[in-house]
Amino acid sequence: MTATDTADQQSTRAKLEQMGRAARTAAKQIAAADTSTKNNALKAIAAQLETQRVSLLKANALDMQAGRERGLDAALLDRLELNDARIDGMIEGLVQVAELPDPVGEVEDLRYRPSGIQVGKMRVPLGVVGIIYESRPNVTIDAASLCLKSGNATILRGGSEALHSNKAIATCITAGLREAGLPETAVQVVDTTDRAAVGALITMPEYVDVIVPRGGTGLIERVSREARVPVIKHLHGVCHVYIDDRADLDKAFDIALNAKTHRYGVCNAMETLLVAEMVAADILPRLASAYEEKGVELRGCDRTREIIPHCVAATEDDWSEEYLAPVLSVRVVADMEAAMDHIACYGSGHTEAIVTQDYSRSRRFMSAVDASSVMINASTRFADGFEYGLGAEIGISTDKIHARGPVGLEGLTSQKWIVFGDGHIRQ
Amino acid sequence: MTATDTADQQSTRAKLEQMGRAARTAAKQIAAADTSTKNNALKAIAAQLETQRVSLLKANALDMQAGRERGLDAALLDRLELNDARIDGMIEGLVQVAELPDPVGEVEDLRYRPSGIQVGKMRVPLGVVGIIYESRPNVTIDAASLCLKSGNATILRGGSEALHSNKAIATCITAGLREAGLPETAVQVVDTTDRAAVGALITMPEYVDVIVPRGGTGLIERVSREARVPVIKHLHGVCHVYIDDRADLDKAFDIALNAKTHRYGVCNAMETLLVAEMVAADILPRLASAYEEKGVELRGCDRTREIIPHCVAATEDDWSEEYLAPVLSVRVVADMEAAMDHIACYGSGHTEAIVTQDYSRSRRFMSAVDASSVMINASTRFADGFEYGLGAEIGISTDKIHARGPVGLEGLTSQKWIVFGDGHIRQ
Repeated sequence: MTATDTADQQSTRAKLEQMGRAARTAAKQIAAADTSTKNNALKAIAAQLETQRVSLLKANALDMQAGRERGLDAALLDRLELNDARIDGMIEGLVQVAELPDPVGEVEDLRYRPSGIQVGKMRVPLGVVGIIYESRPNVTIDAASLCLKSGNATILRGGSEALHSNKAIATCITAGLREAGLPETAVQVVDTTDRAAVGALITMPEYVDVIVPRGGTGLIERVSREARVPVIKHLHGVCHVYIDDRADLDKAFDIALNAKTHRYGVCNAMETLLVAEMVAADILPRLASAYEEKGVELRGCDRTREIIPHCVAATEDDWSEEYLAPVLSVRVVADMEAAMDHIACYGSGHTEAIVTQDYSRSRRFMSAVDASSVMINASTRFADGFEYGLGAEIGISTDKIHARGPVGLEGLTSQKWIVFGDGHIRQ
Repeated sequence: MTATDTADQQSTRAKLEQMGRAARTAAKQIAAADTSTKNNALKAIAAQLETQRVSLLKANALDMQAGRERGLDAALLDRLELNDARIDGMIEGLVQVAELPDPVGEVEDLRYRPSGIQVGKMRVPLGVVGIIYESRPNVTIDAASLCLKSGNATILRGGSEALHSNKAIATCITAGLREAGLPETAVQVVDTTDRAAVGALITMPEYVDVIVPRGGTGLIERVSREARVPVIKHLHGVCHVYIDDRADLDKAFDIALNAKTHRYGVCNAMETLLVAEMVAADILPRLASAYEEKGVELRGCDRTREIIPHCVAATEDDWSEEYLAPVLSVRVVADMEAAMDHIACYGSGHTEAIVTQDYSRSRRFMSAVDASSVMINASTRFADGFEYGLGAEIGISTDKIHARGPVGLEGLTSQKWIVFGDGHIRQ
């Protein structure tokens, strides 16, 4: 490390700390903002995106060109791209978040206690949320809108390859906040590509209350390792569907096909199919043809390969792999207990599904499997904030502490205890 | 550090890892245990304590003697002591926890979604809970019983000065678990006084899901700094009562007296009294005599000292001090906003109370003050798991993430999403 590097890092840290202080101040104002003010800001930001369409596309074109020059692959370029449909999506997202009920101030379980006091819990913002994400510029709007609605200030650190796009989006956000009379520093976008910015953001517990990293395993592991503030992290999704010998095989076929082929590059796609040995010879050939038609490569255990001869052999590594691609590992297991053992050993705690018509087994699977979502006779693809009715999600947590599974507005809040007395003292 | 130190530390780490693995295995069994099995274990442990009274007192006498020889102060010796009344308290605590509703498996918000799936949340144990505490041996039973009831395995690391007592209590716990047919390793007590045990316990994310440190600021800061697993921490309680100029001064008198003098060495005792200037001359002299009678030393701001001449001057440090003693700092403030500014600046986010008859101010104070408990016209001493109806508490969290305020059974659990379908696939 040269002296210049260190000086740069120090100046980046100083800059982040300044943003942190501004966020702390804004957090108080945004926490106190009433529902209609927050909704007005969301709608004003939507209107800004509409007005600034041309400049957004221009800024994004700069990023796309730089990306092509740097040799980004097609998938990354696709995620980086903004077009009219995606801007429409961001606008619609803002309007949807504005329509969600305001979680702040919601009071739960207010009850009288034998002492005469009345005790309950009130939902409150967390304070300042730091979000670190990679290429997709629309995350800037998703994250900003959820944090705003939940009364939090936000510091957003997007990928360096999307810097022009994110700055253009930030201009819209700032204008929208100003229009609604909210502090512009309620949402701040880090406008440096210095990697030290991430290091600074995750080590300022005095200014940042929680970090949400969204991106590849490398980013999330780094953040988890180095953070000095709590992290709501989504590590990866190695999701299973287990077809029980008491399954309705038509339902099983539909679910296994949907869970793998509805979309490939998503964390709630099935990566390993487990099949009870008693029905393997019946269901696997039908599924294999359907997968073949969709271009899905199968990697199977020995018993799978006896049934589907053209299937390649799965290695030990395959069972823990998150393919995010048209690849599926397949294992024939003795029964549900063996399937649950496989899931406990190789699953990532994201989403696990069973297909069965058996009442007792459905209850046992649901209570015993340790994952953020456990499903009976439904496709793993349903594990999603919109599908669950959260309205939107800032990520899917594979942690158990604080927020688990799809994280919406509620995951960005905390609850404080409230006590009403009338001169009550403790005896 | 000598070579021997390092070898000792390595063997301590190896030992803790072995306990961790055993806890992980036990966690699965305890998570699946039904309510009556867990309750039977709690009652069997209570019966063991009753039977083993003499050996518990003998073991404790060894700790007390060693403590006296090491010159522990009276307060520490008092916390360390077991006597018949305290053993009765532990037995009663176990019975109370057995009577609490079982949180595990509780399903919330089960609703149909437009897609046809039915989505809800099921309460589940966290897994393995590590508890690090100082002298009081009764924490061993409190912590073990709450973790057991919430379906978690526990590793308990008590203070070295209580080692004999804790080992004797551990024998009762093990016997109780065995009697109920639960794995003995569901509750493990670390039986080494090596400080490296704490270092190992807080850096094994593969075996421990959350750490609850209970003790002095030094311990908690060390754990927070070094832990590689989530920490539910209780840092300190600098609690305020603000007497508004629209307060009923009789209620104010009772609450201010109770909040300070009901017990001194507790985190929910008031440490600073804030009084609106318009009523200061009326209420402060009355309170000052009452405090004087109880032997409470007052440290005041200049305006307080004009009203109570014998009051010593508070320094800047007094405003952030958790006295845990018959000492109270007093400040006269212009109004509620000034009181809230003082609280935001010096409070520790534990418990804050206002005494007022004003409707709008009570609403503003309750929503704007950022603390784990906010109270209107009630003594801060109510901030407690028993008073709030949690049945018991494993600690009071001053964090915002996961659990805030008194942490009972619910704070030792998480929720997973559950989905019921009938062949549903995502469109």
